[in-house]
Amino acid sequence: VSSGSEPVAIGVDVGGTHLRAGVVGSDGRVTRLVRRRSDVEDPAALVASVVAAVTEVSTGATGGDDGAALPGGFPGLPIGLGFAGLVTSDGDFLYGPNVGVRETPLRVLLEQATGRKVHVLNDATAAVVAEQRVGSARGHDDVVMLTLGTGVGGGVVSGGRLLTGGNGLASELGHIIVEDGGRAAASGIRGTLEGYVSGAAIERAALEAAARGDTGGPALDAPGVVAAAVQGEEWAVSILSEVGHWLAVGIASIASVLDPTLVVIGGGAGVATAPWTLPVVRTELPALLIGGHVRPTIEVVVAGLGDDAGLIGAALAAGDA
Amino acid sequence: VSSGSEPVAIGVDVGGTHLRAGVVGSDGRVTRLVRRRSDVEDPAALVASVVAAVTEVSTGATGGDDGAALPGGFPGLPIGLGFAGLVTSDGDFLYGPNVGVRETPLRVLLEQATGRKVHVLNDATAAVVAEQRVGSARGHDDVVMLTLGTGVGGGVVSGGRLLTGGNGLASELGHIIVEDGGRAAASGIRGTLEGYVSGAAIERAALEAAARGDTGGPALDAPGVVAAAVQGEEWAVSILSEVGHWLAVGIASIASVLDPTLVVIGGGAGVATAPWTLPVVRTELPALLIGGHVRPTIEVVVAGLGDDAGLIGAALAAGDA
Repeated sequence: VSSGSEPVAIGVDVGGTHLRAGVVGSDGRVTRLVRRRSDVEDPAALVASVVAAVTEVSTGATGGDDGAALPGGFPGLPIGLGFAGLVTSDGDFLYGPNVGVRETPLRVLLEQATGRKVHVLNDATAAVVAEQRVGSARGHDDVVMLTLGTGVGGGVVSGGRLLTGGNGLASELGHIIVEDGGRAAASGIRGTLEGYVSGAAIERAALEAAARGDTGGPALDAPGVVAAAVQGEEWAVSILSEVGHWLAVGIASIASVLDPTLVVIGGGAGVATAPWTLPVVRTELPALLIGGHVRPTIEVVVAGLGDDAGLIGAALAAGDA
Repeated sequence: VSSGSEPVAIGVDVGGTHLRAGVVGSDGRVTRLVRRRSDVEDPAALVASVVAAVTEVSTGATGGDDGAALPGGFPGLPIGLGFAGLVTSDGDFLYGPNVGVRETPLRVLLEQATGRKVHVLNDATAAVVAEQRVGSARGHDDVVMLTLGTGVGGGVVSGGRLLTGGNGLASELGHIIVEDGGRAAASGIRGTLEGYVSGAAIERAALEAAARGDTGGPALDAPGVVAAAVQGEEWAVSILSEVGHWLAVGIASIASVLDPTLVVIGGGAGVATAPWTLPVVRTELPALLIGGHVRPTIEVVVAGLGDDAGLIGAALAAGDA
């Protein structure tokens, strides 16, 4: 039996603007955490930024132009990479609405560039692995996670196992359709959950409120709306309540498919807005769910691991693989 | 290794109006099939009708008032029961929008009444077991099934295993919300898929067409609409195309969660309308699905086992349990 803090993998979480990497122990503890800007517009730049981060993590030195020549820090440790979009079971990246890269054999490219074994998965899928193993979903075998940021990601553990689907493309929970023909989203599909509960959706609602003259100040991004809600401003509370309503609708649909015992809300926008959205979700969910008043209550909680969930989960998944 | 035709269980499928039962072999073959009216308004009547059917199946004789005293036909064979509604992993029936019974320990009652081991599951969940083992989904490990009848049922095989969820309540696919606040359904939840693609929804659309003076004849149930579509009547083709559209929306949402390689459309209304609905589904699905134009195509096919799928799958599941 190995010590709980033995390193299992180098975890990397690549989002649309930032990348986080660190050495992750079997207990989920992160050491040597680094944070960089990510470049997700083309495969070569993406690979280079991941290699540089891994070099920095494994040596403590910032990788330069020669970052690809990896020194021997943490030799043999695999890399687990979470990335914002559709990743197949083979580690091929297909498409993400918020990144330029597409149809790239990401796992193979990174294995060639680092000489390490690499496991690639969707970033929100990675996050649910972390939350279920070492975060706020511990003890639950049937977990749904929604990560609310610029977009909306999802991850599912079902019967104690990560739900992958036939091609590794399961749990794209931000892209379920809650209102056919409804609001636009970055994916190009109208009426998806992402268009109603993401950080981008909150900003759009704030801009509309401003256009109506409802808002007093200039801070109309998601943190600005939260700050206004903290001050009790009605327009802001109303926007967040509506987000709560749509979250309830989305969770009801997802729960009709998956029957989770716990739903975890994560991501920057998800955690920041939870004090306003989760009470609405908990109130509305039973009436939107088949047999909602006779079935066991579904717990809805906030994520426990913050911004590190993706890299922790990617590393734990790489350790398993 | 046993013969493919060795009986594994007595399968029973109980719907809102009819009940089917038979002895099912490990290859899915049904013998001694019986069909009766079902009584689903109270637990005692439900149990009595199942016991009578099992008696008839196992003896060839119609059970009378003393049906509970089972003769020894097929001794030791368990019973697999598919029922239209929410069934927990313990075999407790909670609720179904189209039946009067609710919150009944169905497995326990039937085990007491028959002296046999009983496995109870949702009827559409039973159907997907059958289609995946011995029907049109054979060879696929990630399967979604939608059964379109009076209501809409669902069943899911994911990674080769039946998706049950935390409480056995997973795959209630007719109750995902495709249009928040939309059409009414028997569940009381507005905007669920059931309100757009079920036999009842087709009848409602036909009545609306009749009220507009579009229809020529009096046959406004689902078979009547299909008959009119066969004759090329525009109002009927239009109704079925719209069903196809909503099926595409629902399948897109479900596929975003589950990433199946195959979707099976079953149930009386589903099979009868498939010549009009499936072409629409196949055309619309890619544009409604995240990364739809870069991900592998999801096959959409008609169920292969007809009305026997539920009883076959319930028996196969009982044989496993």
